[in-house]
Amino acid sequence: MSTGRIEAFSDGVIAVAITLLVLDLRVPEPDGAGDLGERLAALWPNYTAYVISFIAIGIMWISHHAMLRRLAGVDQSILMLNLLLLMCFVALPFTTSLLANYLDAPRGGHLAAMIYAGSFLVTSAVFLTLQSHLLLRRPHLLRGPVSRSETRTILLRGAIAPPAYLVAGLLGLLTPYLTLAICVVMGLFYLLAPMVPARRADVIHHGATT
Amino acid sequence: MSTGRIEAFSDGVIAVAITLLVLDLRVPEPDGAGDLGERLAALWPNYTAYVISFIAIGIMWISHHAMLRRLAGVDQSILMLNLLLLMCFVALPFTTSLLANYLDAPRGGHLAAMIYAGSFLVTSAVFLTLQSHLLLRRPHLLRGPVSRSETRTILLRGAIAPPAYLVAGLLGLLTPYLTLAICVVMGLFYLLAPMVPARRADVIHHGATT
Amino acid sequence: MSTGRIEAFSDGVIAVAITLLVLDLRVPEPDGAGDLGERLAALWPNYTAYVISFIAIGIMWISHHAMLRRLAGVDQSILMLNLLLLMCFVALPFTTSLLANYLDAPRGGHLAAMIYAGSFLVTSAVFLTLQSHLLLRRPHLLRGPVSRSETRTILLRGAIAPPAYLVAGLLGLLTPYLTLAICVVMGLFYLLAPMVPARRADVIHHGATT
Amino acid sequence: MSTGRIEAFSDGVIAVAITLLVLDLRVPEPDGAGDLGERLAALWPNYTAYVISFIAIGIMWISHHAMLRRLAGVDQSILMLNLLLLMCFVALPFTTSLLANYLDAPRGGHLAAMIYAGSFLVTSAVFLTLQSHLLLRRPHLLRGPVSRSETRTILLRGAIAPPAYLVAGLLGLLTPYLTLAICVVMGLFYLLAPMVPARRADVIHHGATT
Repeated sequence: MSTGRIEAFSDGVIAVAITLLVLDLRVPEPDGAGDLGERLAALWPNYTAYVISFIAIGIMWISHHAMLRRLAGVDQSILMLNLLLLMCFVALPFTTSLLANYLDAPRGGHLAAMIYAGSFLVTSAVFLTLQSHLLLRRPHLLRGPVSRSETRTILLRGAIAPPAYLVAGLLGLLTPYLTLAICVVMGLFYLLAPMVPARRADVIHHGATT
Repeated sequence: MSTGRIEAFSDGVIAVAITLLVLDLRVPEPDGAGDLGERLAALWPNYTAYVISFIAIGIMWISHHAMLRRLAGVDQSILMLNLLLLMCFVALPFTTSLLANYLDAPRGGHLAAMIYAGSFLVTSAVFLTLQSHLLLRRPHLLRGPVSRSETRTILLRGAIAPPAYLVAGLLGLLTPYLTLAICVVMGLFYLLAPMVPARRADVIHHGATT
Repeated sequence: MSTGRIEAFSDGVIAVAITLLVLDLRVPEPDGAGDLGERLAALWPNYTAYVISFIAIGIMWISHHAMLRRLAGVDQSILMLNLLLLMCFVALPFTTSLLANYLDAPRGGHLAAMIYAGSFLVTSAVFLTLQSHLLLRRPHLLRGPVSRSETRTILLRGAIAPPAYLVAGLLGLLTPYLTLAICVVMGLFYLLAPMVPARRADVIHHGATT
Repeated sequence: MSTGRIEAFSDGVIAVAITLLVLDLRVPEPDGAGDLGERLAALWPNYTAYVISFIAIGIMWISHHAMLRRLAGVDQSILMLNLLLLMCFVALPFTTSLLANYLDAPRGGHLAAMIYAGSFLVTSAVFLTLQSHLLLRRPHLLRGPVSRSETRTILLRGAIAPPAYLVAGLLGLLTPYLTLAICVVMGLFYLLAPMVPARRADVIHHGATT
């Protein structure tokens, strides 16, 4: 089975999930009390959660993209793991909305932050599982050989996320703002850390020098 | 007419439908009474229904994918049957939401479960109709010959679903939890049952040995 | 400019618009009064409007598909007309929801039915404009020659819709159920009327015999 | 990395964002007081904002399309800037909804208009940054040479938007209707101003004569 349609479907699902984040940027009721400016300012957790989740999902889409580019074909195990990963992706607007609504609330902020970090922990763990499944157990489905050093770099890059989100979740026991801060740092890290190129030329080059 | 754009449109519709399932993971109102943890725990029917429907739609997408891969072209009858199938797909978030909201409610749970199972019964029956239409009445639109044994395997795999969902619906008369249990079993069955490969090489190989 | 991405974008917009129709299949509140079965039965205008609009949009997607298949390239006028057409498509879930909510209401049903028919009138008129623009004014952008008889068939097929929806809207002055009936007939007509094939071979064949 | 999947993902996100605009065309409650016609007429800011935003996003999609067509490949900086641009796109239904709800409200109209114009100011500024980044700093990723005169035309076309939306926003201090008027003018300008062709033949031709 070719990878074209799994790309198209994954792209579609991720594109809809990332766009649904906007539904949590809610417009205050026109007949409500108080100044519009103040009421919009009070929604800062919503804007913050929107930006963090958008960047996190966007980065995972880029990695997902690079991963599928390495593949020449897929089998049932890959389809199923990918479906599980998409199920995690689609749940992220829900946990984002939970954080946005409870971050500043008198109660529930700690739990909401832990669930938020937990959803990224699970998503990144499933992603890492899929990556190692492909690289270590399905090398015959790859377009070309991936060198040992490259495999290590890819898996290390992915292996940073689950423990980092675990720490972010645990820090939510102290205060949800710390969870948020770690999630911002994670986003910046992945935005700035150089990606492993998915182009075949590099793969061959790396393979030759290893 | 080529199959490229029917794939793209079907992928788009199924991707949006599957992603809309998240809209039923509702965030409890921050100013509501009670502990956030308890209120989230009370939403367990929503999470369960989300997971079951996501996996069921995902598996049907994979089968839909494999089906279209066999086709070299489409005609009006296929377009129309596919449109009918998509109409069923798009209604699934509604019946999922119905089950999620009534499973634990004092009244209406039996009916909601029956409608839920009924929507999967209709969807799988339309899918089976489309599959047999292609394999038995439109062989000239297939990319290559499909052997009799393979045709039987594909149709048997699809023919299990409608009666199973019928039983699931009828058991909803006793208790909606039995309906849910059957739907979970159905998902596990399709996740684990090996799929019929859609690759031409296999088709030719099978054809030669039959 | 190639037609690939205008197809992808149009497919995406139409796929989302058609799927948003499900949002109007609303689940009755679990704590509301009355039997669930009766309350679901009272939503029959929503189901009817869902089916009619889904089929109507689906048929227009098929025609849109066939139209773009004829094109080898697009220019600015086509992009703009297509954008206008998509703007009409995207508004259809709104007018569908309007009809669904007012068909059975004590007041407003006449107006809702007229707006519903009016939205299909405008959409089909823009579609017809785009079709004639391509066939009559942009023949150099077509993949191959389209015979005069074929052009006539395509435009006639499209020209039936605007006056039919005009009649449907005017009959809404009497009763909204007549509007609905005409829309059902229109859907059946387009489902059963043979489409003009978009394949080049047919075009050349027709051209030779005309 | 090829441009195919960044096109598909961007198309998906923009398609969903543009379609979500319909969610702000809200159906008045059937049991509300007053005539349906009057209540629909009172929603004119919603219709106006829908049309303006739909056209603005549609035009930006066309430009985005033309931009990606020029590219033979993408690097990390382009992926990140594009992700930032998509984040702006996805926020536009929110600012559109804000304007629609407050344009005619007794208070908040000035601020809503300024935020509306501000969101288009930021989006067009990010777009211009991406365009100049590609043309001036990543010429080796382009499919073919872009002449100096053509580069100037593209960047000038894009450079008009940010100051125009700045003026639109500032005029919102006087009255939100002026903001709306400028946004309408901007839409008409881009609809009618000839686009720079993205076809290679034109590029070469232009390059030869410059």
